[in-house]
Amino acid sequence: MANKEDTLGIAVKMEQDFPEWYNEVVIKGGLAEHSTIKGFMVIRPHGYAIWERIQAYFDGIIKKHGVKNAYFPLLIPESFFKKEAEHAEGFAPELAWIEKSEDDGERYAVRPTSETIMYDSYSRWIRSWRDLPLLINQWCNVLRWEVKQTKLFLRSREFLWQEGHCVYETEEECDKEARYYLEQYRKVAEELLAVPVILGKKTDKEKFAGAKTTYSIEAFMPDGKALQMGTSHNLGQNFAKAFKISFLGRDEKQQAPWQNSWGFSTRLIGAMVMTHSDDKGLVLPPKAAPIQIAIVPIFRKEDKDSILKKADEIKNSLKKYSVVLDGREGYTPGWKYNEWELKGVPLRVEIGPKDLEKKQAVFVRRDNGKKEFVPLKDIEAKAKETFDLMQGDMLNKAKKFLDESIAEASDWKSFEKELKSKKLVLVPFCGSGPCEEQIKENTGGATSRVIPFEQPENIGECVQCGKKGKFMVYFAKAY
Amino acid sequence: MANKEDTLGIAVKMEQDFPEWYNEVVIKGGLAEHSTIKGFMVIRPHGYAIWERIQAYFDGIIKKHGVKNAYFPLLIPESFFKKEAEHAEGFAPELAWIEKSEDDGERYAVRPTSETIMYDSYSRWIRSWRDLPLLINQWCNVLRWEVKQTKLFLRSREFLWQEGHCVYETEEECDKEARYYLEQYRKVAEELLAVPVILGKKTDKEKFAGAKTTYSIEAFMPDGKALQMGTSHNLGQNFAKAFKISFLGRDEKQQAPWQNSWGFSTRLIGAMVMTHSDDKGLVLPPKAAPIQIAIVPIFRKEDKDSILKKADEIKNSLKKYSVVLDGREGYTPGWKYNEWELKGVPLRVEIGPKDLEKKQAVFVRRDNGKKEFVPLKDIEAKAKETFDLMQGDMLNKAKKFLDESIAEASDWKSFEKELKSKKLVLVPFCGSGPCEEQIKENTGGATSRVIPFEQPENIGECVQCGKKGKFMVYFAKAY
Repeated sequence: MANKEDTLGIAVKMEQDFPEWYNEVVIKGGLAEHSTIKGFMVIRPHGYAIWERIQAYFDGIIKKHGVKNAYFPLLIPESFFKKEAEHAEGFAPELAWIEKSEDDGERYAVRPTSETIMYDSYSRWIRSWRDLPLLINQWCNVLRWEVKQTKLFLRSREFLWQEGHCVYETEEECDKEARYYLEQYRKVAEELLAVPVILGKKTDKEKFAGAKTTYSIEAFMPDGKALQMGTSHNLGQNFAKAFKISFLGRDEKQQAPWQNSWGFSTRLIGAMVMTHSDDKGLVLPPKAAPIQIAIVPIFRKEDKDSILKKADEIKNSLKKYSVVLDGREGYTPGWKYNEWELKGVPLRVEIGPKDLEKKQAVFVRRDNGKKEFVPLKDIEAKAKETFDLMQGDMLNKAKKFLDESIAEASDWKSFEKELKSKKLVLVPFCGSGPCEEQIKENTGGATSRVIPFEQPENIGECVQCGKKGKFMVYFAKAY
Repeated sequence: MANKEDTLGIAVKMEQDFPEWYNEVVIKGGLAEHSTIKGFMVIRPHGYAIWERIQAYFDGIIKKHGVKNAYFPLLIPESFFKKEAEHAEGFAPELAWIEKSEDDGERYAVRPTSETIMYDSYSRWIRSWRDLPLLINQWCNVLRWEVKQTKLFLRSREFLWQEGHCVYETEEECDKEARYYLEQYRKVAEELLAVPVILGKKTDKEKFAGAKTTYSIEAFMPDGKALQMGTSHNLGQNFAKAFKISFLGRDEKQQAPWQNSWGFSTRLIGAMVMTHSDDKGLVLPPKAAPIQIAIVPIFRKEDKDSILKKADEIKNSLKKYSVVLDGREGYTPGWKYNEWELKGVPLRVEIGPKDLEKKQAVFVRRDNGKKEFVPLKDIEAKAKETFDLMQGDMLNKAKKFLDESIAEASDWKSFEKELKSKKLVLVPFCGSGPCEEQIKENTGGATSRVIPFEQPENIGECVQCGKKGKFMVYFAKAY
């Protein structure tokens, strides 16, 4: 769809107005748009294809691990929410209720997450230790009635996600597995999307409503805000008890099993876009890009046929990849370059009359703009090499930014200073909820992001209250 | 999950009580269950894996054809429905409304189908003939507030489906493509699910709310009821005009485009189950079965290791297929046979001490129970051969039943007689809505199913009113 607006490129620079720049990059890159319905977004084909790549990558991993997909109802009875008190309280403000359902003598809400509706079934399915572990995942849409302004992919009333819900005989297995899924999330973020993350635990205040422990992968965006990329919860036996899930153990005793749940959403796309894109539009890492190569032939009337023929040969030699051959007439090469740059296509291949003569093509990398002349016979090998390099370079560049964005502070003054210069600040913290609330208030919105798994032996005094610190934790403002 | 109930097999025979038999086959086969929430179902992993096979098969076809997937909001504003009058009226009784949405000054309903919300976006995306054809598909859940009793996969308040929504420059292309997708539906039904179908058009009374023409594939179930397996609608310019979609044509004139939409749902799984299953449980065609082969080793303590080793070798030689090696202890081979039969696994491979001696295994086909001794060296080739045969045999058997179920009638008396003997009856019909209503009333529920594409030159008199018939059409009671 070559709407006129596309030709204009990104009107706002990243430095000028980051949120508006992001919004434009997503819209003009053809990934998504704001729906006419307040708070909702439309995921356009170019954006949905990224989600499909994420799905294929992660679905392959979990299926190999023994997880099976299933589908549970969209609506959840009010009574189910009330069975786990913390969970009910956590989600109450965000629920959208169905009018008509009162005919059935009960109110139903559109699922904000599916613990309760799934565990109602689990309570019938699980009888013996032989039924465990039960490893189930669901790909679906969820609704959370946000009141804040919609940000495409990052905050909207509906989003797409996966939610894994597993049940185990022992707490040890359950917790180990919760961390296994977190490690797979790291792979999705770093290896597919080239977004580096920090792994760790959430504080009690920030953990999932109803969980015993929440693990998280956390990324840091170019505007100095942290972004939670995925969470994996050790639910303990809380839900098992609330939903009366029990099994006959190997010891012949009836007991409650241990559960974890883990999810990531279309928000990942937003994180990837912010991490890599620039003032020309989207920049996508080769592994996650729906279109990996755009071939742009450059021709006059007299050499059109020979150039297009060669361009087609090049396309055929790149069959492994997702390639567009842009042979459209009535558009200049420059216009086409802009369009594929806006859409984040990792590699542009140009071929004109001179190249044809020299039996070469021109490779242009989207991430750094580097040009290279490639002999036609080397095209396939060179494409592979370029993509491997580019995928690595993009991750490394983002890692460098993350490393440079990390600061440590042991007292309030330096903590405040680092936060002001938009750092992700590691501080000793006492772990108390009210203390964390106080920090948020005093800093104008910084929240605890993640308690890294690696901790020093001695923790200093809490930056806020001065009491003995329990652990080191990252604080930052966040999406 | 080896619940005790599974061991009992199907308690009701197909002949005794078809609906209850079907319900048991689905539940005990582990495909789905009734949710605690009235009117909703849970699709269990074994059932969802069939849906994934259907998705992979069809998604491959449409992507090759140039269709791209996207995602549109779950909620639809009331005002959108009202833009196309017939559409609004058709869906009004089945809508579930959101309570909270009135905060936004408008009521929202959960989507029963997505024409309106998608075409709202299309009106912004389409400007010129260069933007056409626009070929978009969505895989999602929809809600239709059914008041009739839930039948797993066949009738429930929520179901999963795909909905394709395409836009074209000309009516000719639009209609041709609507029929193209119908032909792909035929392939899904016949080639993947081994369910034979009749292709044709719907009568005006049965067509989709807002469509110009509805095409349909129609199957016929063993209990003598027809089942609509998928529909493809030529929407004409109705929605384009209602949603103000217009484009600048090659003739430089602004004009309304032509649209089609097409969908099939998880109902396909129900049709496949009814068509093939028996009193022992599910029977699944090899191409659609999530587990294609169950290897059951038969051993005593003394030969356990050697048998399991050989069974494992067999499993490795069948890597192309989805194989379970059922080495569980504490279950008899007979118990295992029952379980895999209940679950519809197409091929059982048994290997015991005598087989080991003779360097053979035993193949047992699920569809006809035939046993065959297969030399171990031929296992892979024989598995392929068996599956090809079985897939064909199952389709042919179902085709034979369909052919035998078709009757023709030219007068009311024979029409009534054929309907009573549970036939799919082809009759001359005048095409009028009231006349069709009358037939439904007089026959206790028979509806027009499909107007086959192939029509005789001369049509007799309408079986109901005696006026000149317009076309031959199939009538039957239906799901």
